[in-house]
Amino acid sequence: MPATPEFDPAQLTDAVLASFAGAPDPRTRHVLGRLIAHLHAFVREAELSPDEWMRAVDFLNRTGQISGDTRQEFILLSDVLGVSMLVDAINHRAPGTTETTVLGPFYVGEHRVMPHGTDLAADQPGERVLVEASVTDTAGRPIAGAAADVWHAGADGFYDSQKPGYRPDKPELRARFVTGADGKLWFRTIVPRSYPVPTDGPVGELLRASGRHAMRPAHLHFLIAAPGHQTLVTHLFVAGDDYLGSDAVYGVKPSLVVPLEPGAAPTWPDGTPAPARWHRMSYRFALTRKDSTR
Amino acid sequence: MPATPEFDPAQLTDAVLASFAGAPDPRTRHVLGRLIAHLHAFVREAELSPDEWMRAVDFLNRTGQISGDTRQEFILLSDVLGVSMLVDAINHRAPGTTETTVLGPFYVGEHRVMPHGTDLAADQPGERVLVEASVTDTAGRPIAGAAADVWHAGADGFYDSQKPGYRPDKPELRARFVTGADGKLWFRTIVPRSYPVPTDGPVGELLRASGRHAMRPAHLHFLIAAPGHQTLVTHLFVAGDDYLGSDAVYGVKPSLVVPLEPGAAPTWPDGTPAPARWHRMSYRFALTRKDSTR
Repeated sequence: MPATPEFDPAQLTDAVLASFAGAPDPRTRHVLGRLIAHLHAFVREAELSPDEWMRAVDFLNRTGQISGDTRQEFILLSDVLGVSMLVDAINHRAPGTTETTVLGPFYVGEHRVMPHGTDLAADQPGERVLVEASVTDTAGRPIAGAAADVWHAGADGFYDSQKPGYRPDKPELRARFVTGADGKLWFRTIVPRSYPVPTDGPVGELLRASGRHAMRPAHLHFLIAAPGHQTLVTHLFVAGDDYLGSDAVYGVKPSLVVPLEPGAAPTWPDGTPAPARWHRMSYRFALTRKDSTR
Repeated sequence: MPATPEFDPAQLTDAVLASFAGAPDPRTRHVLGRLIAHLHAFVREAELSPDEWMRAVDFLNRTGQISGDTRQEFILLSDVLGVSMLVDAINHRAPGTTETTVLGPFYVGEHRVMPHGTDLAADQPGERVLVEASVTDTAGRPIAGAAADVWHAGADGFYDSQKPGYRPDKPELRARFVTGADGKLWFRTIVPRSYPVPTDGPVGELLRASGRHAMRPAHLHFLIAAPGHQTLVTHLFVAGDDYLGSDAVYGVKPSLVVPLEPGAAPTWPDGTPAPARWHRMSYRFALTRKDSTR
């Protein structure tokens, strides 16, 4: 009979590592080697029981099964375990680039292009904020033709794609703006509010078991793609939010926190009448060239 | 503004660990603490890129989505990463207990009770094996009323539940036998053969990327439950198989490898005629009492 691995835990780990050592691609070999080493060390140190293992299998199954076109529970799990921001942190960008944060589970792919000035919340009540942004390179030169996807949650704390009856052809609080020669974009929407990440799935169970709250500080998502530049995935957070120090997904960076300034003019930039009370957020997004080293 | 965590990778890990430190249940706190420490160390040491992270998310999603009542891809993933056998290895049973091995992804829940002697492969050609087993306690005393679920793959390498048109009410190569006062059970079936684990899902991708074969040595699955005793999940492997030394799921233990002995008698134990050529496997399964310490 051929030799069989001994079932001493450490020898088992060695046998598993050895069986992956023949992966033809060196990068695959390295990543799987580190994965197995840490996965096995976790199981040994946690002394997982068979029942706990079965509950973990069930948890992972349900996390995959609740995911689909409009909900990405594995991204959310990665977010609440700090893994998404860790991947972000170890993949530095060139100096001068706008800082990045989580993509989040509710990006549904390329948005429809809308004219500058569009009110993303046309049918919804709430205080208005004017967002004025520019897209530049790291030297501050405007980038024309940059496509900025913007999305955020409504006053009820939900993204459009979370709601029953969601129609991808009728987006709410979701648009793409394309910059002109001046690199600028502007739009109106309601002031974002802090909200809980979805807690009706496996990630909610995890947060409850952990005694953690599910809140994210108020933010607008941006995904900005421009020819010749690295795509930027980030947020603008609203200064003063109660949850800036305890974001459920660890996504806050001080450079992304933007004040809500009081709006003064009686009209919007396009000359149409503005309400008596409105707010303004402004920001410059700086993108790195694709040929730049990390 | 409240303090925000710094995005140095190590400080981020500390912030995430701190946020889980309030889990009310000490066991949950311990397990999640070890999970986060190793998951973060894996991401840091592997230096995962955002693209690799997204591919991992997609892999996990698909692993959940291909799973269902008759297929458990996350169990299979755990199996081929050696995690299932590691959980087995760190949960020792009392001396004298039969050794355990993986449950595998194709157990479909309690089987239908069949009479001793049943041919599990009644409609299928192939050399017959007579399996004679007894269920005892660790002192060798017979256990009456033990329910032994048996299942195995056919000559084509598939379990019944893997095939299109599978009907849970018409099981093939799958049965439950209940021991009488003598603790014994016996049945006939075809000689099991080595076969590949399913390679048409995410686990198949992983094995191909790893340069690993997908084969498991020939075996019969047993799940044996008896009142007052700990449930035993194990296999009997057929001695002489080519893959005993390289089982894709690391499940082989020498004590579970059983010879195929040549059958000599012209009849089966119940007096019905046996074919000219048949085989015999015999084994004693020893269960631990529930009140026994591990």
